[in-house]
Amino acid sequence: MPNDTSAPATPATPVLGIGMIGYAFMGAAHSQGWRTVGRVFDLPLAPAMAAVCGRDPAAVRAAAGRLGWAAAETDWRALIARDDVDLVDICTPGSSHAEIAIAALEAGKHVLCEKPLANTVAEAEAMAEAARRARARGRFAMVGFNYRRTPALALARRMTAEGRLGVLRHVRISYLQDWLVSPDFPLAWRLRREQAGSGALGDLGAHAVDLAQHLAGEPLTAVSAQTETFVRERPVPGGSPGEIGPVTVDDAALISGRLASGALASFEVSRVAAGRKNALRVEVNGTLGSLSFDLERLNELHFHDHTADPAEAGFRRIHVTEDSHPYLSAWWPAGHGLGYEHTFTHQAHDLLQAIAAGTDPDPGFEEGLQVQRVLAAVEQSAAENSVLVPVPAPQPAAVPAG
Amino acid sequence: MPNDTSAPATPATPVLGIGMIGYAFMGAAHSQGWRTVGRVFDLPLAPAMAAVCGRDPAAVRAAAGRLGWAAAETDWRALIARDDVDLVDICTPGSSHAEIAIAALEAGKHVLCEKPLANTVAEAEAMAEAARRARARGRFAMVGFNYRRTPALALARRMTAEGRLGVLRHVRISYLQDWLVSPDFPLAWRLRREQAGSGALGDLGAHAVDLAQHLAGEPLTAVSAQTETFVRERPVPGGSPGEIGPVTVDDAALISGRLASGALASFEVSRVAAGRKNALRVEVNGTLGSLSFDLERLNELHFHDHTADPAEAGFRRIHVTEDSHPYLSAWWPAGHGLGYEHTFTHQAHDLLQAIAAGTDPDPGFEEGLQVQRVLAAVEQSAAENSVLVPVPAPQPAAVPAG
Amino acid sequence: MPNDTSAPATPATPVLGIGMIGYAFMGAAHSQGWRTVGRVFDLPLAPAMAAVCGRDPAAVRAAAGRLGWAAAETDWRALIARDDVDLVDICTPGSSHAEIAIAALEAGKHVLCEKPLANTVAEAEAMAEAARRARARGRFAMVGFNYRRTPALALARRMTAEGRLGVLRHVRISYLQDWLVSPDFPLAWRLRREQAGSGALGDLGAHAVDLAQHLAGEPLTAVSAQTETFVRERPVPGGSPGEIGPVTVDDAALISGRLASGALASFEVSRVAAGRKNALRVEVNGTLGSLSFDLERLNELHFHDHTADPAEAGFRRIHVTEDSHPYLSAWWPAGHGLGYEHTFTHQAHDLLQAIAAGTDPDPGFEEGLQVQRVLAAVEQSAAENSVLVPVPAPQPAAVPAG
Amino acid sequence: MPNDTSAPATPATPVLGIGMIGYAFMGAAHSQGWRTVGRVFDLPLAPAMAAVCGRDPAAVRAAAGRLGWAAAETDWRALIARDDVDLVDICTPGSSHAEIAIAALEAGKHVLCEKPLANTVAEAEAMAEAARRARARGRFAMVGFNYRRTPALALARRMTAEGRLGVLRHVRISYLQDWLVSPDFPLAWRLRREQAGSGALGDLGAHAVDLAQHLAGEPLTAVSAQTETFVRERPVPGGSPGEIGPVTVDDAALISGRLASGALASFEVSRVAAGRKNALRVEVNGTLGSLSFDLERLNELHFHDHTADPAEAGFRRIHVTEDSHPYLSAWWPAGHGLGYEHTFTHQAHDLLQAIAAGTDPDPGFEEGLQVQRVLAAVEQSAAENSVLVPVPAPQPAAVPAG
Repeated sequence: MPNDTSAPATPATPVLGIGMIGYAFMGAAHSQGWRTVGRVFDLPLAPAMAAVCGRDPAAVRAAAGRLGWAAAETDWRALIARDDVDLVDICTPGSSHAEIAIAALEAGKHVLCEKPLANTVAEAEAMAEAARRARARGRFAMVGFNYRRTPALALARRMTAEGRLGVLRHVRISYLQDWLVSPDFPLAWRLRREQAGSGALGDLGAHAVDLAQHLAGEPLTAVSAQTETFVRERPVPGGSPGEIGPVTVDDAALISGRLASGALASFEVSRVAAGRKNALRVEVNGTLGSLSFDLERLNELHFHDHTADPAEAGFRRIHVTEDSHPYLSAWWPAGHGLGYEHTFTHQAHDLLQAIAAGTDPDPGFEEGLQVQRVLAAVEQSAAENSVLVPVPAPQPAAVPAG
Repeated sequence: MPNDTSAPATPATPVLGIGMIGYAFMGAAHSQGWRTVGRVFDLPLAPAMAAVCGRDPAAVRAAAGRLGWAAAETDWRALIARDDVDLVDICTPGSSHAEIAIAALEAGKHVLCEKPLANTVAEAEAMAEAARRARARGRFAMVGFNYRRTPALALARRMTAEGRLGVLRHVRISYLQDWLVSPDFPLAWRLRREQAGSGALGDLGAHAVDLAQHLAGEPLTAVSAQTETFVRERPVPGGSPGEIGPVTVDDAALISGRLASGALASFEVSRVAAGRKNALRVEVNGTLGSLSFDLERLNELHFHDHTADPAEAGFRRIHVTEDSHPYLSAWWPAGHGLGYEHTFTHQAHDLLQAIAAGTDPDPGFEEGLQVQRVLAAVEQSAAENSVLVPVPAPQPAAVPAG
Repeated sequence: MPNDTSAPATPATPVLGIGMIGYAFMGAAHSQGWRTVGRVFDLPLAPAMAAVCGRDPAAVRAAAGRLGWAAAETDWRALIARDDVDLVDICTPGSSHAEIAIAALEAGKHVLCEKPLANTVAEAEAMAEAARRARARGRFAMVGFNYRRTPALALARRMTAEGRLGVLRHVRISYLQDWLVSPDFPLAWRLRREQAGSGALGDLGAHAVDLAQHLAGEPLTAVSAQTETFVRERPVPGGSPGEIGPVTVDDAALISGRLASGALASFEVSRVAAGRKNALRVEVNGTLGSLSFDLERLNELHFHDHTADPAEAGFRRIHVTEDSHPYLSAWWPAGHGLGYEHTFTHQAHDLLQAIAAGTDPDPGFEEGLQVQRVLAAVEQSAAENSVLVPVPAPQPAAVPAG
Repeated sequence: MPNDTSAPATPATPVLGIGMIGYAFMGAAHSQGWRTVGRVFDLPLAPAMAAVCGRDPAAVRAAAGRLGWAAAETDWRALIARDDVDLVDICTPGSSHAEIAIAALEAGKHVLCEKPLANTVAEAEAMAEAARRARARGRFAMVGFNYRRTPALALARRMTAEGRLGVLRHVRISYLQDWLVSPDFPLAWRLRREQAGSGALGDLGAHAVDLAQHLAGEPLTAVSAQTETFVRERPVPGGSPGEIGPVTVDDAALISGRLASGALASFEVSRVAAGRKNALRVEVNGTLGSLSFDLERLNELHFHDHTADPAEAGFRRIHVTEDSHPYLSAWWPAGHGLGYEHTFTHQAHDLLQAIAAGTDPDPGFEEGLQVQRVLAAVEQSAAENSVLVPVPAPQPAAVPAG
C-alpha cells in the first residue's frame, strides 16, 4: 500500500477504509482532509485512503497517485463493494448523490456526501430514510457542509449556543462570487438544471441556509424569494463555432425568511457580483450581542458585546487562532492562520469522532433534507411572485437544540 | 440682525431669506448647513437665516440664539408669511409635511422638506402636484435625501452615470441601527404610526430606496417585503409607573425588489441590530465593476474595476478627499475627511444653485413621491404574505436619466 | 457687526474678542472653529470674531467676508492693539510665531499659536518665558496641537490616564503624506528652511511627538533619527522656465526614542509615501491592553483589553460617537461621525473653558517648547550618525501628570 | 515503507530522500510541507520522507508516526549518514545550525536550514563558505525564510521586480507578538542568549530584514537600533518554587536603516505588543506606487497605483487567490484562501525545483549570512547609543538583481 498516506498514528488504532467517488475540486479538497487529519489530530479511527473512483481509467489512476489513494476504480458500485472500504465519500454532481448514497448505506457503509444533499426533496427524503435505516445498524451518514468547520464559524456557533447573543433578531448571509459575469463563460454542467439541480441557489444558497439554521440553532419556517438568470444563453463547450445553448439555472437569488423564533433571515447569493470571489458574509444580531464573519478573512470573527459599557463597546476582531478556539489546539501557535482546505480536515475529524462514538454526525442527512426543503420552498416562492412559502418543520432530530 | 450668520460673501450677491420649522436633531443639522455653506462655497445666492419656528416660545427663542437664526416664530403660518422668508425649510415630523409644504409653495416660497416626503402616498401626490404648480411660477421644492450629498456617494453616482459599472446586476443596501434593542426604550413619537407613518421603513428605508434608485439611475418596479415589530409594547413617556403602550410601527424590514433594467435590489433596515449605530452600507455590482460604501467610514468609496488585469484587481479604497471629488475643492487639502453634517451644507449648496439657475432641484418632490410609492408597496407586500407588489412608474421627470 | 458669527448664546455671557493672523488653510480651519463653537457647546465666554489680519488689503478684506470676521487689518501690530481683540490666534508660518506671540502676550492678550510653536528652541524658550509672565497677569497661551481634540484620541488619552493600558511598552506613530512624490511639485515656502524651519519633521513630526507624549503622559528622554531629502531640487515658483532651486528641508524622518518610563517610541513621518494622504497612525501597547488609531478613519478607536478571556479578546472598533465620549454629547446622535475640522471647534472650546476658569490651557507653550526640544534633538541625531541624543527634561509644569 | 507519504506522483520521477532534524513547531510545519508538496504541485523530484531525528527515542518514534516519517534516528550524525537521505532539513535551535549544516554539506547532502541561519556572523560565514564548496559539487543549501513564499508577498516581490513601484523611498516592517507580556511566562530556551542568540531580534527581526531586502531587491547598508528587555527576570522552568533567572535576550527592537539605493527602512519587532499575535506588517512606498501587507490577513495584498487618476486611486485589496498569482494555480479556485503552513509547502516546491535544475536556491546561505550581518550591526548599534553602523556589502551573488 505504497500510497497509503493515512496509516494509523499508533498501530493499535483501528483503521477505517475510505473510498471516494469523484476527484475534481471537491475530491482534491476531501483528499487533503483525509491525508492530513491523522497527522494533526489524535483520532479514535485511522482513515486509510483505500480507493478513488472515476469513469476515465487513466485519469482516475493518475488522480489516485497524485492525491494519495491506494487504488483506483471506474465503477462506483465496485468501489462500494470493496472490503477495504468502510466509508464512501461522495464528491460527484448532485444528480447522482441519492443513488450512490442509498446504495452505499444499504451495503453497510458509512457515507459522507457533498452538499447539496440532492437535487430534489424526493431524493433527499429517500436518502434521509436510508440514513435512518442505516443508523439502526450502526452506520452513519453526514452531509458536507464544510463551512461549519471554519474555526471562526464554529466559535460563532459555540457563542450563540451559550446564549452570548441573547434572543436573535436578525441573521443575514450573503454569498457572492463573480465567475459568471462574463457572457463568454461556457455552458458548463453547473449551468444545466438536469445535472446541477439549481445554480447559485443550490451551490451557494445551500451553504447559506445551512449556516443560518446552524448558527441560530433553529429551522427556517417560511421563505420568500426572487431568482434571476441574467445571461440566458452561453457558448456550448465543444460545440460548433458560435453555438450557444440555454442556461437553465439561476445566476442569483434573493431570499428573505423567518426562523422558528421569529427572527428575520435574509440571504443573497450570486455568481455575477463583480469583484467578490468567494465572499460568504454572515452577521447575526441578538439582544445581547452580534457576530459577523467574512470568508475572505476566515481567521477572524467579529463580536459585539451589547452588555459592555457603550464608551468601550464595539465589534472586536477575534483572531481565531487560540488554543481555546475550536480545532485550533491541534494546529499552530496563536496568530498563525488556517486556510479554506482546513475545513475538510476538520470535517473528517468530526465524522471519525462520531463514527467511533456511535453517534449521529452533525449535520446528518436529516439536516441536509431540511436545507433541501428550504431550497424547494425558495424555488416555489420565486415561481409564485415571491409569496411567502412555508417550510415543513423538520423531524425533531434534524436540528439539534444547540 | 446680530445673529445673521449667513451674510453674503460679497455685497453684490442677492440674498435668499430662509425660514426653518422645527429645531431638534434635523433642525440643528440644517442650521449648521445654512450657517456654513456661504463660508465654504462660492454661491449665487446668499442665504440669510431669517427665522426659526417652534411651538414653545421660550425654547424657540433659545434655539434661535443658539443656532443662529435672527428671529423666532411660534406659528408656522406666520413664518411662511414673513417677507424676509423666501425659502421654507421643513424639519418637522412627517405627519405635518404636506400641509406646511403646500401652504409654503402656494405662498410663493421655495421649499426644502425633510424625508420621508410624507406619511402617505396621497399626501405626497398632493405635494408633488403643488410643486409642479409652483415650478411654473419659478418656485422650487426639494426633498432632503441628504446622503446623496456624501462626497463618496456623489462620486459613486458620478461613476455609475458615466457607465463605469456597465449594466447593473445588483444593488444591495442595509441600514442598521440599534437604539431599540432595549425593551426599556420608551414609546417615543417615532414609534407611533399616526405621527411617524412607519418605523425603520420610513426613517431608514426611505434613504435606502432613494439611494438605490439614485445610484442606479432608474426606478424600482416591484417589491416584496417582510416587516416586524419585535418589541410590541414599550413604557409610555410621562405615563404612570409601569404604564406601557403598543408600538405601532415596524422595528425592521426586509425588502427585495427589481429595478427597471431587471437588476435585483435588496434592502434591510433595522433599529435592533446590536452594535450597528448608523450603518448604512451600499453595494452596487455591474458587468464592468462594483462599488461599495459604509456610512460609518463615510470618506471612503471602494471600487472594483472588473476590466483590470485579474492579477492586480481588487476593491480599491478611494479616500474621497481630492479636489476632483464632488464638493471637495471647497474644503480642506486631500486626506482631511469630512463628517455627517457636511451633507447638509452640500444640500444647501445644491439647492441654492438650482434656485439661482431656475432649474429643478434634485431630488424634487416627484422623486420623494416615487420613494413614497415604493414604501407603500413594501407595506402592502408585507401585509399580503410578501407577494411581489408592482410600483407605479414615476412620471418621466421624476427619475433623471443619469 | 453684520458678520459677527459668534455672538453669545445668551446675552449674559461675556464676550471674548478674537483676532486672527493668517487666513490660508489653517486660518480657514480656525475660523470654522470660532464660528461653530458657540453654536454647539455651552460656553462660559462667547467668542466674537473681531478682526483678521493679512498683508494684502483686498485679499484680507475678501477673506474677512468669506470667513466671517468683522474687520480686516493689514498689520499684525495693529490687530494686537485693537481693543476688541482679547485673544490673538496665530496662523502664520513658524518663522513669525515668536515675535507675534510675545508681542501679543506682552500687550495683555491671550494667545493661540499654531504648531510647531517655533522654528528654533531659542524662540520657543522665549515664548514659554513670555507665557509664564503672562500667566501671572491672568493671560494664557495655548499651542494648537489640534489632533489631541479628535474625539477618538481624546478617548485614548482618557483610557491611558485611567490606567486601562497598564504600564506602557510601545508607542508608535507614523504620519504619512504623499504630496511631494512628484519632482514637479514646486519649491514652496514649506520646502525652505528659513521659513518652515524643517520639513516633514516640523509639520508632521511635531504632531507625532506631541501625541506620543500626551497619550503616554510622560516626556521623551532621548531620540535617535535619520532624515532624508529625496528630491533635492525643485522648480522655483514664479521663476524662469526650467529654473530650479535647492530644497532645504527634509522629506522624511525616522525617529526612535525613549519615554521617561522606559517605553520605546517609534516615529516615521514622510511626504513621499505614495497613496497615504493624511495617514496619522497611532498605536500604544501596554501590559493591560493596547489602542490603535488611524486619522483616515478618525471616528474609530481600536482597543484590545488584554485582561479579557483570550477566546473572546481582540481589537474592538469603538465607534467614537457616543454621548459618553469626549466632546460628543454636544454633537449628533450616536453613529453620526465628525470630520477633521471639528478638532478646531473642540480646540476653541477647550481654550475658552481654560481662560474662563483661569487655568492653564493644555497644551501650553511649555509643552510646545518640549516638542521643539525633541525636534532639535532629532535634527542633532540625524546630523551625528543617528546617535541617541538626550532631550532635556521639561519643567515640572510642562507635561501634566495625567 | 508504510508511512511514506511522499511517493512520486509518477513512477518515473526520481526520488529525493529527506531527513529532518527537530520535530517541534518548525518540524511539524516542515513535515506538512513535505507531505503535501507532491500532492499539489508537479515536481521534478519526488520527496521521500526518509527519517526524522530527535534525542528522545520514544518521542521521536511517536513523532515519526504522527508526522509521516518512515524512520526515526536519535543521532543527527546517523541521520546525515543514511543512504536514503539526500537532503537534510534542519529545524533545531540556532546554536546547532552551523555544525549540522556544515557536516551535512560536507557529507554531500543538500541542506534546508531554518532561520536565522546561525547565532553569530562567524558561524554564518562558515556555513556560507561550506555552501559555496558544496555548490561546486552540485549540492545546494537554502535558508528557510518561509514568508517569502506567502503568495501575497511573492506577488509583492514580482511587482517590485517589474518596476511597478518605481524608485523606492520607504520600506517599513513591523512584526509584533504578545506572548511575553505576562511576567509569569517562564524562562524558556528562547529567552536565553546561549541557545537562541537573540530574542525578538533573531526570531522576528530576521524575517523582517530578509523581507525588506528581498522586496527591495537590494541590501541594507547601515542600521541604527535600540533594543530592550522589559521583563528582566522570569520563573525558571522546573526550578524550585519562586526561583527566577535572568532573561538574556531582547523583548523588542527598533531599527532604522538605509537600503543601497538610499531608501529609508524602518523595523519594529516585539514580543510584548499586547493584542498582536503574529502581526507581520509590511509597507513599501515608491515613486510609482505602494504595497502593503499584513500576515494576519495573509491572502491580501494592497496596492496603490500612483499613476492612476487621483479621483479613482486608492489602495486596492488584491485577493491573492487567482491562477495568475504565485503558487496559486496549483491550489483551489479563486477566492479560496490559503493559510500559514502553505509557505512551507511552497518552500519545499521551490527548493526541489532548484535542486532539479542545478541552480542556487533562493535564499541561499549567502543571503542568510547577509541577514546575520545586519542583525550583528543592529546589536552593535544598540550597544553604542544607536549610532549608525555600516553593514558590510554582500558578495555579488548574495542578493539577486531582481
